[in-house]
Amino acid sequence: MSGALFLGVDGGGSRCRARLETAEGAVLGEGLSGPATLRLGLDAALRSIMDATRQALATANLGEDAFARTYAGIGLAGTGQPGARQALESWRHPFARAWFEGDGYLALLGAFGGHEGGVVIVGTGTIGVTHLRGRTVRIGGYGFPVSDEGGGADLGLNALRGALRALDGRSERSAFYAEVLQQFGADPSALAGWMTTATATEYATLAPIVVRHAQQGDSDAVALMLKAGAHVAELARALFMLGVSRVALSGGLAEHVKPFMPADVRDRLANPKADALAGGILLAKTRLAAETAKITEVQS
Amino acid sequence: MSGALFLGVDGGGSRCRARLETAEGAVLGEGLSGPATLRLGLDAALRSIMDATRQALATANLGEDAFARTYAGIGLAGTGQPGARQALESWRHPFARAWFEGDGYLALLGAFGGHEGGVVIVGTGTIGVTHLRGRTVRIGGYGFPVSDEGGGADLGLNALRGALRALDGRSERSAFYAEVLQQFGADPSALAGWMTTATATEYATLAPIVVRHAQQGDSDAVALMLKAGAHVAELARALFMLGVSRVALSGGLAEHVKPFMPADVRDRLANPKADALAGGILLAKTRLAAETAKITEVQS
Repeated sequence: MSGALFLGVDGGGSRCRARLETAEGAVLGEGLSGPATLRLGLDAALRSIMDATRQALATANLGEDAFARTYAGIGLAGTGQPGARQALESWRHPFARAWFEGDGYLALLGAFGGHEGGVVIVGTGTIGVTHLRGRTVRIGGYGFPVSDEGGGADLGLNALRGALRALDGRSERSAFYAEVLQQFGADPSALAGWMTTATATEYATLAPIVVRHAQQGDSDAVALMLKAGAHVAELARALFMLGVSRVALSGGLAEHVKPFMPADVRDRLANPKADALAGGILLAKTRLAAETAKITEVQS
Repeated sequence: MSGALFLGVDGGGSRCRARLETAEGAVLGEGLSGPATLRLGLDAALRSIMDATRQALATANLGEDAFARTYAGIGLAGTGQPGARQALESWRHPFARAWFEGDGYLALLGAFGGHEGGVVIVGTGTIGVTHLRGRTVRIGGYGFPVSDEGGGADLGLNALRGALRALDGRSERSAFYAEVLQQFGADPSALAGWMTTATATEYATLAPIVVRHAQQGDSDAVALMLKAGAHVAELARALFMLGVSRVALSGGLAEHVKPFMPADVRDRLANPKADALAGGILLAKTRLAAETAKITEVQS
């Protein structure tokens, strides 16, 4: 084996990222693809994982033969769904070994390098994660729309509700709401049709419009971001209340929502040491080391 | 023809009602069946319409031969969906004649007997409807979850969000939230699985739990009802702002939400003259009379 490679994969509701490193921690390549959440189905998630991974290999100038010496730590949204774990374990992946965890767990590993702490992911969905007394504890993250408040899909839904309310005179019209409706040709029946099949990932495509208008000071967009900030703060508070000493934010929307969080919680937030990709690589290294130790134990 | 019969049908997201009358207005029978909204598909809606109609005929001791002298005014939720009207018009129904309108339009006809006014339906969804300068104007009602705030499905969703937040320590637990979760065996992953296919009709099955706990004074349930009341009031206010002089509530949740509406709007509400079934019968009579007049005109 000409040097083990370590792959970290961070799969979320809107995108999937991959990073390939040497055992010494030198970054060889990265990749980015579409959504990798089990909520959009196993096949779509695996396709995104492999897309991002192949990109990472390509930027590293490595061929498919490198798979055999690659150890992968893969984080995915939606692993809490019934049957999700079993389905993942039965995947005939091309790696030397692969380990799967929820995306929150990998963000946590990355943020505190495996040490004590908690993390709130703010992406398409939201979830609070910590590790207490040998057990992973999740707050929220049961899926959109019954949970995941403050994430991109929730922001998108609230933007649509506001836009429709403005459309027919229930509230004030604004350039912000006009731009939201324009995504559907300003046609509410087109929006209603879209809604019948829209996934959280699709609702989340509207979040950047909210973020931009809030940054430009639109009062409705600011109100939606403050609501998201309050929800994210609630997740962080629940972690603090469990006795977690430090909490960091992670995920694609984290830095956008942060300025809209209540100051008392925002000021208590820790800076994450590294991202969920680093968490994935750490997972792969730790699990490989544990297995190697076991094998040595059995042989000696 | 041994006397024309008139049938009013009120199809909503949670139930479908039918009423059969003579030309003179004597009620012969009524029927009640499951959801009749185009959002659950045309076939399911037509099945519910026929179920409720057959019950009405049965209580009237009439056989299927009575269809041929029955004129039906049928109201359905979801008629605003693309292609909905065409699909309905092509239905090979058994009636002498059948006319289709949105459920809101029939509630409006029933509430004010065809005279000026506006109505807010509070059922599985919500919608404000009025008739202005020869045109039907709708406020809201674009479908759950992007619209229909304050209806049964929205109440159910908010109850679930609250219950999950209480479950993992983001907010206070209560007997109310415990009962909501108990619908899923207190198992959040069962709830998450249910959610992946749940329709507005299914979310609305939780609304009676909210209503009951609010009546018993649970503060979380009261807060949810007040939020619903504010949304219903917003729909009424939008109708008043269009110049509608009187607005009535209609729908299965109307009387439950009313006590939780802001007093200024609640005190302005008119009492509906009759229900949407009466509106359906009025629709059938009016349309039949207009067609008969046209035929007479052509013949003379």
